[in-house]
Amino acid sequence: MPGIWYGGDYNPEQWPPDVLAQDDELMRRAGVDTATVGVFAWASLEPEPGRYTFGWLDDALDRLHANGIRVLLATPTASPPPWFGPAHPDALPVGPDGVRLSHGSRDTYCAAAPAYRRAALRIAGRLAVRYAGHPALALWHVHNEYGTVCHCDHAAAAFRTWLRARHHDDLDELNAKWHTAFWSQGYSRWEQVLPPRATQYLPNPAQVLDFRRFWSDQLLAAFTEQRDLLRRHTPDVPVTTNVMLPSDHQTLDLWRWAREVDVVAVDHYLNATGPAGRADLAFGADLTRSFNAGRPWLLMEQATSVIYLYEQGVIAARPPGRMRSDSLGYLARGADSVLFFQWRAGPGGAELHHSAMVPHAGPDTRVFREVTELGADLRRLGELAGSTVRAQVAVLWDVEAWWAVAGRGLPSSRLRYLPALRQVHAALRRAGVVADFAHPEQDLARYRAVFAPSQYLLSDLGTQSLRRYVAGGGRLLLGCFSGVVDQRHLVRRGGWPGGLLDVVGIRVEEHLPLVDGERVALSGGAVGTLWSELLQARGAQVLADYRDGPLAGAPAVTRHAFGAGAAWYVSTVLDDVALAALLGDLLAQAGVQPELPGAGPQLEAVRRHAADGRSWLFVTNHGDTGCELAVRGVDLLTGTRADGVLRLAPGADAVLREDLPTARAAGA
Amino acid sequence: MPGIWYGGDYNPEQWPPDVLAQDDELMRRAGVDTATVGVFAWASLEPEPGRYTFGWLDDALDRLHANGIRVLLATPTASPPPWFGPAHPDALPVGPDGVRLSHGSRDTYCAAAPAYRRAALRIAGRLAVRYAGHPALALWHVHNEYGTVCHCDHAAAAFRTWLRARHHDDLDELNAKWHTAFWSQGYSRWEQVLPPRATQYLPNPAQVLDFRRFWSDQLLAAFTEQRDLLRRHTPDVPVTTNVMLPSDHQTLDLWRWAREVDVVAVDHYLNATGPAGRADLAFGADLTRSFNAGRPWLLMEQATSVIYLYEQGVIAARPPGRMRSDSLGYLARGADSVLFFQWRAGPGGAELHHSAMVPHAGPDTRVFREVTELGADLRRLGELAGSTVRAQVAVLWDVEAWWAVAGRGLPSSRLRYLPALRQVHAALRRAGVVADFAHPEQDLARYRAVFAPSQYLLSDLGTQSLRRYVAGGGRLLLGCFSGVVDQRHLVRRGGWPGGLLDVVGIRVEEHLPLVDGERVALSGGAVGTLWSELLQARGAQVLADYRDGPLAGAPAVTRHAFGAGAAWYVSTVLDDVALAALLGDLLAQAGVQPELPGAGPQLEAVRRHAADGRSWLFVTNHGDTGCELAVRGVDLLTGTRADGVLRLAPGADAVLREDLPTARAAGA
Amino acid sequence: MPGIWYGGDYNPEQWPPDVLAQDDELMRRAGVDTATVGVFAWASLEPEPGRYTFGWLDDALDRLHANGIRVLLATPTASPPPWFGPAHPDALPVGPDGVRLSHGSRDTYCAAAPAYRRAALRIAGRLAVRYAGHPALALWHVHNEYGTVCHCDHAAAAFRTWLRARHHDDLDELNAKWHTAFWSQGYSRWEQVLPPRATQYLPNPAQVLDFRRFWSDQLLAAFTEQRDLLRRHTPDVPVTTNVMLPSDHQTLDLWRWAREVDVVAVDHYLNATGPAGRADLAFGADLTRSFNAGRPWLLMEQATSVIYLYEQGVIAARPPGRMRSDSLGYLARGADSVLFFQWRAGPGGAELHHSAMVPHAGPDTRVFREVTELGADLRRLGELAGSTVRAQVAVLWDVEAWWAVAGRGLPSSRLRYLPALRQVHAALRRAGVVADFAHPEQDLARYRAVFAPSQYLLSDLGTQSLRRYVAGGGRLLLGCFSGVVDQRHLVRRGGWPGGLLDVVGIRVEEHLPLVDGERVALSGGAVGTLWSELLQARGAQVLADYRDGPLAGAPAVTRHAFGAGAAWYVSTVLDDVALAALLGDLLAQAGVQPELPGAGPQLEAVRRHAADGRSWLFVTNHGDTGCELAVRGVDLLTGTRADGVLRLAPGADAVLREDLPTARAAGA
Repeated sequence: MPGIWYGGDYNPEQWPPDVLAQDDELMRRAGVDTATVGVFAWASLEPEPGRYTFGWLDDALDRLHANGIRVLLATPTASPPPWFGPAHPDALPVGPDGVRLSHGSRDTYCAAAPAYRRAALRIAGRLAVRYAGHPALALWHVHNEYGTVCHCDHAAAAFRTWLRARHHDDLDELNAKWHTAFWSQGYSRWEQVLPPRATQYLPNPAQVLDFRRFWSDQLLAAFTEQRDLLRRHTPDVPVTTNVMLPSDHQTLDLWRWAREVDVVAVDHYLNATGPAGRADLAFGADLTRSFNAGRPWLLMEQATSVIYLYEQGVIAARPPGRMRSDSLGYLARGADSVLFFQWRAGPGGAELHHSAMVPHAGPDTRVFREVTELGADLRRLGELAGSTVRAQVAVLWDVEAWWAVAGRGLPSSRLRYLPALRQVHAALRRAGVVADFAHPEQDLARYRAVFAPSQYLLSDLGTQSLRRYVAGGGRLLLGCFSGVVDQRHLVRRGGWPGGLLDVVGIRVEEHLPLVDGERVALSGGAVGTLWSELLQARGAQVLADYRDGPLAGAPAVTRHAFGAGAAWYVSTVLDDVALAALLGDLLAQAGVQPELPGAGPQLEAVRRHAADGRSWLFVTNHGDTGCELAVRGVDLLTGTRADGVLRLAPGADAVLREDLPTARAAGA
Repeated sequence: MPGIWYGGDYNPEQWPPDVLAQDDELMRRAGVDTATVGVFAWASLEPEPGRYTFGWLDDALDRLHANGIRVLLATPTASPPPWFGPAHPDALPVGPDGVRLSHGSRDTYCAAAPAYRRAALRIAGRLAVRYAGHPALALWHVHNEYGTVCHCDHAAAAFRTWLRARHHDDLDELNAKWHTAFWSQGYSRWEQVLPPRATQYLPNPAQVLDFRRFWSDQLLAAFTEQRDLLRRHTPDVPVTTNVMLPSDHQTLDLWRWAREVDVVAVDHYLNATGPAGRADLAFGADLTRSFNAGRPWLLMEQATSVIYLYEQGVIAARPPGRMRSDSLGYLARGADSVLFFQWRAGPGGAELHHSAMVPHAGPDTRVFREVTELGADLRRLGELAGSTVRAQVAVLWDVEAWWAVAGRGLPSSRLRYLPALRQVHAALRRAGVVADFAHPEQDLARYRAVFAPSQYLLSDLGTQSLRRYVAGGGRLLLGCFSGVVDQRHLVRRGGWPGGLLDVVGIRVEEHLPLVDGERVALSGGAVGTLWSELLQARGAQVLADYRDGPLAGAPAVTRHAFGAGAAWYVSTVLDDVALAALLGDLLAQAGVQPELPGAGPQLEAVRRHAADGRSWLFVTNHGDTGCELAVRGVDLLTGTRADGVLRLAPGADAVLREDLPTARAAGA
Repeated sequence: MPGIWYGGDYNPEQWPPDVLAQDDELMRRAGVDTATVGVFAWASLEPEPGRYTFGWLDDALDRLHANGIRVLLATPTASPPPWFGPAHPDALPVGPDGVRLSHGSRDTYCAAAPAYRRAALRIAGRLAVRYAGHPALALWHVHNEYGTVCHCDHAAAAFRTWLRARHHDDLDELNAKWHTAFWSQGYSRWEQVLPPRATQYLPNPAQVLDFRRFWSDQLLAAFTEQRDLLRRHTPDVPVTTNVMLPSDHQTLDLWRWAREVDVVAVDHYLNATGPAGRADLAFGADLTRSFNAGRPWLLMEQATSVIYLYEQGVIAARPPGRMRSDSLGYLARGADSVLFFQWRAGPGGAELHHSAMVPHAGPDTRVFREVTELGADLRRLGELAGSTVRAQVAVLWDVEAWWAVAGRGLPSSRLRYLPALRQVHAALRRAGVVADFAHPEQDLARYRAVFAPSQYLLSDLGTQSLRRYVAGGGRLLLGCFSGVVDQRHLVRRGGWPGGLLDVVGIRVEEHLPLVDGERVALSGGAVGTLWSELLQARGAQVLADYRDGPLAGAPAVTRHAFGAGAAWYVSTVLDDVALAALLGDLLAQAGVQPELPGAGPQLEAVRRHAADGRSWLFVTNHGDTGCELAVRGVDLLTGTRADGVLRLAPGADAVLREDLPTARAAGA
C-alpha cells in the first residue's frame, strides 16, 4: 500500500451522470486516490430477492480505475433492503422490552438470525464472484460499523449455545459463575437462560457481562464468515471492516476483532471542538494503532467538518484549517490513510447534513479548497507510509472492565471508564509522552510504565500479568476502584486490589463514594472528587493522605516497591494538576523521556520511525504564540530545511524528516 | 352572527337538576348568550352500540333556547365510549413502538381505521337528524381538537394510498423524492412502505415529512366527511371544528384546514404569565385571523385563569383583571367571540382542576364576578362584530418548514421554528405594527414587508413567490438556515438560500452551529447565538459582519436591492435589541407606520375597521405608569368621550370608536 | 421476645462450608442472636417444580440453633425461580404499556395470577410442614417487601372483582364515583373496565386512585393467605412481613397492613447522609411505631453503611461511628431489634456491593469492629425491650392523600406529599417534640396537637374526625391545598377545605400555584414558595397576610377558635424559620413540652417508658460542641451515673435509665 491513501466513501448510485462526470474531474483536482464504494448499497444491488443490478457498480469501478483510483469495495450487509423485513420478520431486531424494530433507518437485522446471515453471505458472495480480479479492487470493506445487538429468540438461542461452549456445557458451572443463588436465579435447564430483557429491577451483572461478550463474539462471527468467503474468492485482497471508535458506549471487544482483520480500520468523529477535540483525536489514534499491534492503520472515516455533540443535539463545525491539522495528527500517530465520510454531500436521507469533501454548496467553497490543499500536502508525505510509532508507556484498555463498571447497581454511576482513561492519556500527552494502549493480560515488559486508571474488573490472568510486570521491573499505576471483581463479575474477597495486595502494598477495605459536588482535600493541595476509599498501607509509602472528611489522616495515594519495580495506587479521582505531578514523578523514576524534551505543553510532538532508521517528527503548535524548536531536518510540507531551529507559528504544523538520531539528542 | 358571542363549553350531562337550574340563572346574570354542547358526550348519547339516549340533550337545547342562548352543537367523536375498543380492537391507536393504547383518557381511536370512521359518521348523522331545525342550533362544532396520529396497519395502508396519489402511483418517483438510494431504502413494492415506526437509528426525513402531511390530510378527511354529512341535513348551519393553536408541536396544516371550515375557531391557552403571555396572545390571535383570511374568527376556548406551564408541571393562574384585558386583546385582533372552556368546573375526570366561568367554589368568587363584569363589557362592544384588522406586513407561517426543521439529525436541535417566529412577531408588536401571517406560496404583494424567520424548507413554488414579491417591490427579511431544502426535504445544491441567491445577493456555503452558551459578536454591538454561517456577499451590502470566532470579518447581516424591492439576510440569531434596530430600518424603508404612531412600546394599540368606514381603536397600557394618547372618539367601555386626549392608567384598556380618519392622523 | 434482637439476613445457600464455619465463630464474636433465613431462596429450595432440596436449610437451622441464634424464617415467594415463567407465562408481570417482563432480577410475578398464588402457597406450606416445631423458629417472615404491581389481564379481572365489591356491584355507582360523564368514559358493562394502561392523555384520577387501593389490597390478600396457612401449622409462631418504608413512592396502605401482621417489621435505608439522614431515620421510626399502634417494632433491615442516593446514581457510605448512633436512634423511637441486610456481603448477584456486617474485605475491618462493639452495646440495653414511646402530638399520614396528590394533571407537580410531612416532622423534632403519625379517620383525642400538612384528599370520615377533634379541644394545623377532594377524588364544591369551612373559619376559593423560583413575601418576614391561595377569613384571625404578588393584602396564615379547640390554616409552603415560629406558638397554646425542656436543637432526646414506671432517656449530641444535661440516672452504655449533670461530647450518645420522675422535672 504505497503512500498515504486519500479519499472517502463514494456513492455513485445516488447521483446522475453529469455529477459523476464532475466527480472524476474533482477527484483529480483534489488528489484523491482511494474510494470506498458500495457501503449500504444492498437495495441498489439486489432490489428484489435474487434479482441483481450490478451495472452501475461495474461502471463505477471501471471509471474509478480509469481515473487512477483504488477501490475499497464494501459488502452492503449493514442495511438490508425494504424487502428483507416482510420476507423474514423474525430477523428484524428486538429491544430488551420486546419491541421489534421496523425498517426505516439502517441496520435493521438481528445478526443471530439465520435468515439474515444467509442473505448477507449471498450478496457478499455475488460481489466476490463479480469483482474478483477487477484491477481497482484494493481491499474488501466488510459491512459497516458492526454494533447492532438484539434480544430476540434467535439471540437467546445463540446466547445459550455460546454459554454452553464457554461454561463447558455445565449448568452448575454457570450457576456458580453467575452466583445465581442470589435472588433465586438458579437455572435447572439451559432453556431457562435468557438475554437480559426487561425485568422488574436490577439484573444479574454476570449475565449482563456474558451477554455483552456474546454479542461481540456473535458479530465477529458474522464478520469472519464473510471474510472467509471473500478470501476464498480473492486470496490476495486484504479484508477489513470499519469499526467505530468507542464513544459513550462500546459493543465490540476490539482486541479480539483486531486479530481477525488484515488491517484495523476505524471511523473517528471527534467528540468536541477545541483542545478537547484534539485530545480525543490523539486518544483514538493511539488506541487504533495499539489494536493494530503498532502497525500502520487505516483512518477509514472522518468528517471534513462535522463534530457531533450529541448531548447538546448540535453538530459543531470544524473551523477553517483544522481538517488539515487534524489529518496530520492522525498520520503522526500511525495512520497511513486520510479517508472521509464522504466524497460528496448527498441531498437526502437521514444524514443529509453530514459534511463531505465536496459540500452541498459545491467545489467553490472553503471546504473543497482545503480538501485540495490537503491532497497536495499528502502527496509530499508519501514516504512515511509504513513507518511506525514507538511508545515507552501504555495505558490499559480492557472493554470487559468498562462493561463491568458501566453496569447498574454499582456504588457510583459517576465513576466512568472512558473519562478515567482520557484523563490519564491527556496528562501523558501534555507531558509530551506518546502512549500505547495495552491489554492487562498481554506481555507488558516492553513498557517502562503502565497505567491502569479503571480496572474495576481485573481477570485472574490480568492480575498475574500485572504482578509479573511489576516484579520484573515495571512501573504500574493503579486507579481507584480497581481489582474489585474478577472476570466473572464476582467480588474478590479479602480487600482490594484483590490478588495484588502485596504488589501494591496496601489493602482497600471499604469504598466511600463522594456525592455530587463533594470534594475531599488531600495533603499537598490535591483535591479528590467522585470517590474515596478506606485503605491501610501494608508496606507502601504514603505519598498523600486525606485531609478532611471521614477519612482524614488515612492514606490516599501510595507507592510500593515490589520485586524490581514499583506500584502506585490512587484511591480517589485526582484533579488534573495533582495527577500531572504524580505522573511526572512516576515517569522520571521510570526513565521515560518526552518525545521532544523541553518542548512544553503547547507543543504536540510525535515521531514515526521507518525500519531503515529514518524518522519523521510531527509537530503542532497548539499555543497562542510562536515557538522555536531545536531540530534538524527537512519540513516535508514546505520543503524547507531546519538547521537547528524550526520556527512554528501559532496553530502551525510541520512534518520534519529528521537528519540523524544525534540531531534529535542535540535538539533536546 | 350579531354581537360578540359570550359563553363556553357546557356539559349538562355531568350535573344534577338543581345545578342545571342554577346554571340558567347564573348564565343570565353573566350575560352569556352562547353554549358549546355535546363535546365528548358520546357515551352519554350512545351508551351501548346502537342504543341512543338523547333525552338529556333534548332538554338541554330546549332549556338553553328558552334562556336565549344559542347552541354550538358538537359531534362527540373525539372520544369513543368504553364499548368501542372491545368491539373494534383494531381501531385503537398504536404508537411508533407498536404499543396499542387503551381506553382510559380521550381520543383513543385511529382516524384511519374504517370502524372508527363508520361509528363517528353514525353518531354524527343521528345528531344531525335529531337537531336539524332546532331553533337553538347556531353552528356545528365537529369533533374536538383533531390531532391524534397513529402508526397501525390501517394507518400504513392509508399512508400508502395517500403516497400513491401524491407521487403519481410511481414507485420510482417516490424512491427519487425520498432519496432512498441512501442507506439501502429503495422500495421495490408499495407494500414495503411503512410509517416511520421504531427503528434502529435516524429515520428518512422525507418519509417523516410525508407522514406528517399524510396525517394532516387524513384527519382533514375525517372532518370533511362529517361536515358534508351535516351540510346535507342542515345546509344553512355553518360548520367548523375547534383547532388548538400551535404550541410545542403541530399536527395540522392549518392553511389547508382553514379552507374547509365555514369559520376558523381556535382554542388558545396562554403559555406564559406576564408580558410573555400577552405576546403569545397576540401571536395566536394574528395567526388565527390570518388562517381565516382576515375575517372575524371564533375564540372557541380560552381559560378563565389556567395557564399551563408544561415544562414546570405547574398550572399558573391568570391574576385578577387579566381575563378581561386578555379577552379584549383577542377582540382587538379580530375575534368575534369570547368563549371559554368551560362554563362550570366539573368535580371529577382528568381535568378536574381546569378553571371555569363558575369555579368549584361557586359564584361568590373573584372569577365569577369578573365573568359577570366581562359579560357587561361585551354587550357594550357588540357594534364591532364583523369588523376587520388591516395589517401592512406579514410573517411567513409554513408548517412544512416547521415539520422539516424539527426533524432528527439536523445540525441543531436548538434552532426551533416557533421561537424564531415569536421573536420577530414580538419585535413587530413592540414597534407598534400589527402583522398578518402568510404562506410563502400565496400572493404577498399586498404587504409592504414580509418576514421569513425560519424557512429551512422552502418549496419551489414558495421560492418563486418570494422572488416575484421582491422583484415587484416588496421588502423581504430572510432568517438564517433558510432555503436549505425543497418540498421533498432534499438539500438544494450550490449554496443557500437555494433559488434566491440573486435575490438576496449572497451565497451561504457552510453552516456553523454554535454550541450551548456560545455567543458570537457582530459589528455594531449585536450578539448572535445558536447559529452562524459562512457566506459571501455577491452584490449585497454588508450591514454587519462577524467580529470574533472562526468567521471574524465575514458578513453576518446583509441587504440587497433586487428588482423594485430589497431582501435582507440574517445569518445568526440576533439579540432582541439588534433585531429591533434592523426591523426599524426595514420598516422605515418599507414605509410601514405603527398603528398609533408615537405610542411607545408600553402601549398596545390595534384597530378594527368596518366596511362602512367606522373604526375602533383597542388600546392597552402595559406599562407601570399612566399615559396620554392623542385620540378622538368614544370609549365604549365607559361611554366617555376623548376629545384629543385619552388618559390610560397602568394596566387599563380602552376601546375607542374613533371620530374620523383625520383625527387619527392628528393624534400621531 | 427478650432483649434487643441483633443480627441480619443470612444466606447460607450462597456459601461453602469453610465460610459457614467462620460465620458461626464471627456471629458469636459479634453477639448476634438473630438470623433471617430463606429470603429469595425459592430456587434453592425447589429447583424444579415439585422437587425440593431442604437439606441445606435443615443444616442451617440446626447450626444456628446450636449457636444460640433464633431464626426468622422467610417464605421465598418474592422471587419465583427461572422455571416459573416458562411454566406460567401468563403469570409474569405486565407494565402499563403492555410489556411483559422477563425473569432476570427478582419479583417477576403478578400477584393476581392464580398460578403464582398457587405456587407461592405450595412452597410456603412445605416450609411450614417441615419446620413447624423447630426450636430455632422464632417468627415467620413472609415474602419480602411486597410492592410489585401489574397491569395484565389477570390484574384487570381481579380489579373488576374488587371494584364490584367496593361499589356494591353497581355500575351506575362506579360511573358516578368516577365521574365518567367527563370525556365519554361511561361504562355500560363491567367487562369494559380496565387498569389504567397506556392511553392517549391524562387518565381518570378516580380510576387511578382505585387501582392503587386495589393493588394494596391484592398484595395484602397474597400475604394473608400465606399467613393463615402458616398459622394453621404453627399457631404459636408470630407472622409478619418486612415492608419498605415509603421513599419516593408508596404502594401499600400500611395502616391496613399493620392490622394483619403480628408485629410491624420494616426495612429502612436512609435517603441522605448527615443531618438529613438522621431526620429521615426519626421520620421512619416514628412512622413504623405508629403503624404498630405504639408497640415495639422490628427494624428488619438496615445497612451497615450503604445509603442509596438514587437521583445521583451513587451509594454513599455511612461514616465511621454512625451505624452505632443510628441504631440507638431506632431503639430510642421504639424498635426492639437491630437487624441488617445482611450478615455477609455476597460476591455476586445484583446487589454485590450492598454493605454487610461482614464486608467483602472480611472481619479485619472498620465495619466488623463496629458491628462487634454494637453487639456489646446492645447486650447492655436488653432491659428496655418492650418499653414504649409516648407522643403528645401527631402528624397525619394518609397514603390515599399521597396517591391523590401525586396524580397527573394537578395544579402543581411540585407540591409533593412526603416533603410536606417531612418539613413539619423535622420542625417538631428540632423543637424537641416526639411525634406519632395518625390516620385522619382515627380517634385523635389523645393528642394535644395534630398536624395535617398535606391532605389534598380528605375523606368524609376524615373530615368528621377532624371536626370532632377540634371541637373537643384539639389543636389542628392544616396545610395548603387541603380538603380539596373527597375519597372518590371528586372536588368538594363551595370552597376549601371542604367540610371544614366553619372549623377553620376561612374559605379558599382559588389556587394560585407559584412557578419555579417564584417566592411570595408574607407579613412578619416569612416567605412562601410553590403555592398560594386566595382565601377569605370568615371568623378566623389573620396571623400573616401576603405582601406582594396578586394576593397582596389577602390572608395567608390564619387561626380560628372552634368549639373547645382551634384550627390553623397555612395557605402556602412556609420557609423553615417561619414554620418553626408558627409551630412554637401552636405547641405553647397546646401545652406541649419538649421531651427534655431547654435542651436546644443540637440535642436529640427521646424517652422510652416501661409499664412499671421505669424510663430510659436516649440522648444524642448532634452539635459540634459538648453539652451538659441536667439529668439523674445510669448511662447503660458506660455504666456510669449522672447525678444531676451528664456531659455529652460532640457526636456522643447516651442511654440513661432515669432515677425518678421527679429527677426529670428537676433536670428541666
